[in-house]
Amino acid sequence: MKVFKINGKTGTSEIVIGESIKNLSKYSKSNKCVIVTDTNVNALCGAFFPSGFEVIEIGIGEQNKTLSTVEKLYEKFLEFGLDRASYVIGIGGGIVCDVTGFAASTYLRGIRFGFVPTTLLAQVDASLGGKNGVNFKGYKNLIGTFNQPEFVLCDFEMLKTLPIRELKSGFAEIIKHAIIADIQLFSYLEKNYENALSLHRTEIEKILYDSFAVKSKIVSMDETEKGERRKLNFGHTLGHAIEKTTGLLHGEAISIGIIAAAKLSLKKGMLTQKDAERVENLISKFGLPTKIKMDKIAVIDAIEKDKKRENKKIRFVLLEKLGRAKIIDIEIDELKGVVSDMC
Amino acid sequence: MKVFKINGKTGTSEIVIGESIKNLSKYSKSNKCVIVTDTNVNALCGAFFPSGFEVIEIGIGEQNKTLSTVEKLYEKFLEFGLDRASYVIGIGGGIVCDVTGFAASTYLRGIRFGFVPTTLLAQVDASLGGKNGVNFKGYKNLIGTFNQPEFVLCDFEMLKTLPIRELKSGFAEIIKHAIIADIQLFSYLEKNYENALSLHRTEIEKILYDSFAVKSKIVSMDETEKGERRKLNFGHTLGHAIEKTTGLLHGEAISIGIIAAAKLSLKKGMLTQKDAERVENLISKFGLPTKIKMDKIAVIDAIEKDKKRENKKIRFVLLEKLGRAKIIDIEIDELKGVVSDMC
Repeated sequence: MKVFKINGKTGTSEIVIGESIKNLSKYSKSNKCVIVTDTNVNALCGAFFPSGFEVIEIGIGEQNKTLSTVEKLYEKFLEFGLDRASYVIGIGGGIVCDVTGFAASTYLRGIRFGFVPTTLLAQVDASLGGKNGVNFKGYKNLIGTFNQPEFVLCDFEMLKTLPIRELKSGFAEIIKHAIIADIQLFSYLEKNYENALSLHRTEIEKILYDSFAVKSKIVSMDETEKGERRKLNFGHTLGHAIEKTTGLLHGEAISIGIIAAAKLSLKKGMLTQKDAERVENLISKFGLPTKIKMDKIAVIDAIEKDKKRENKKIRFVLLEKLGRAKIIDIEIDELKGVVSDMC
Repeated sequence: MKVFKINGKTGTSEIVIGESIKNLSKYSKSNKCVIVTDTNVNALCGAFFPSGFEVIEIGIGEQNKTLSTVEKLYEKFLEFGLDRASYVIGIGGGIVCDVTGFAASTYLRGIRFGFVPTTLLAQVDASLGGKNGVNFKGYKNLIGTFNQPEFVLCDFEMLKTLPIRELKSGFAEIIKHAIIADIQLFSYLEKNYENALSLHRTEIEKILYDSFAVKSKIVSMDETEKGERRKLNFGHTLGHAIEKTTGLLHGEAISIGIIAAAKLSLKKGMLTQKDAERVENLISKFGLPTKIKMDKIAVIDAIEKDKKRENKKIRFVLLEKLGRAKIIDIEIDELKGVVSDMC
């Protein structure tokens, strides 16, 4: 078991890597604890929830990541008489964590909360960085706050219940962290991908820890996403556009986005051919897609609607070298060229 | 003109005392500014709003302090294409400021915002301290965040449009600040109450500045209301209960609450008879009520439902002496005795 501590502007957070959900009540010390989860997770893991905790179930899928779900949580919080000393624990994937974090951050102007993420993606991504929120009128995460949970328990047993495709998808964010800021982690992933995919304890513990270290360092430099933190968007501008227009999982779409960003870095003379190939090979080793048949026009349209766009330029994350990202304004047309190459 | 600066955990804020709304555009430098106001304020002051700013009107009164109003703001923000560089300005009383602050703090996980409070109560109370939010299912301010506006312009001209009863009500919070932490301000108010009520520039500027200094010092010690900040609740436990059960304005109800808290401090041997009388006299000088016919049972019932209650005790703010508050757990029964004395 490894513990990763984060000191953010909005508070301190403890990520416990390799802890079992069975020990949850050690972390949520309070007069009253409420668990927020979804129907699937409750069915699979409900038996491990501590007795005496109230459980609130939300529906499954992105269509439930709304203000209306948040309002239902407020109603339940009231019904259970939660006060400022109470604890809310989100147990589930990214959607459960995002919705729970937002509800807890705004109920009574913020009560204490923690997460037990049940997917690798949520362990790596949604539980660290303090972003929470919901979609609004079709816009992803339009409404939310920055507020770090007090604790995050990463239980590897949870990951064993995941479909393999979803597990692989979670590794995309880890690979991203290695590429943008940790060349040692990158090499480690190249060597140990098989044990990582089989969820061997030693490897997964190290990989998660190092991945948190990358994200945490970047987040702590820029908690409210005004500069440095944009590096975490590596692979995401194109990735989001692909996710929106194809049926790919988040990590799968990000994989294509990462490869495109590496190719563009190569094209601009920033990355070597050899390193661009290492990126593609690593993604391939983790069983993630390296190319996809996509509707070029729809993808470009989605990029043009991107929040980070300013006139004809877009703020884009490229690679100076393997292990070092750089934020650069590039022409939309340049990006279109890369999209064409990928199709 | 006096400028009061606040460095809070959630950012820096500038309160400009005696600035005209006509200079608003100096403070909200951005590609896009949106004003949120209510029907009354728009009719009275709309002519002074800078040209080129979009204006969103919300309905008047507590019944509009809801999530549904916040959602309407989100929709308008989307319609006007607000991004992270945009500015939202709330111009109105406490309700406009509270709703605007919450919407701006959660849209895109927080965009920049400022206030032009148009009532004395909002200038003193709602614009400083970073509390925002809305009511939910009949509970006041159940949903919200702590987030300080970047600027607050206190325009005295605005106050001249207020009904005199509302103006007097605003002074109750100023008197409260003097009583809990600033004996000099208390003496100044005793001497200069007439010019203060006539909104003479010199007096009102000094009184607001000193009042901000008290609140700001307390808030900076405890931004998320875990200890010291509770002192600002002086007069409010009983005051809120009275406000809820009678037709009194906030400041009027608080005045009764302040006198009750002073009387209880006297009873407990903490405050002298003479100082308790000074409190009552000052409130009287500002034309605020010192007693009211109230439904004792309803008031006690409201106190018992108070958020700050723990079993049979309630966390209460008393006075060690004039100019110094102290937080003490007292028995509900003791409080009932004081309520009986006031009826």
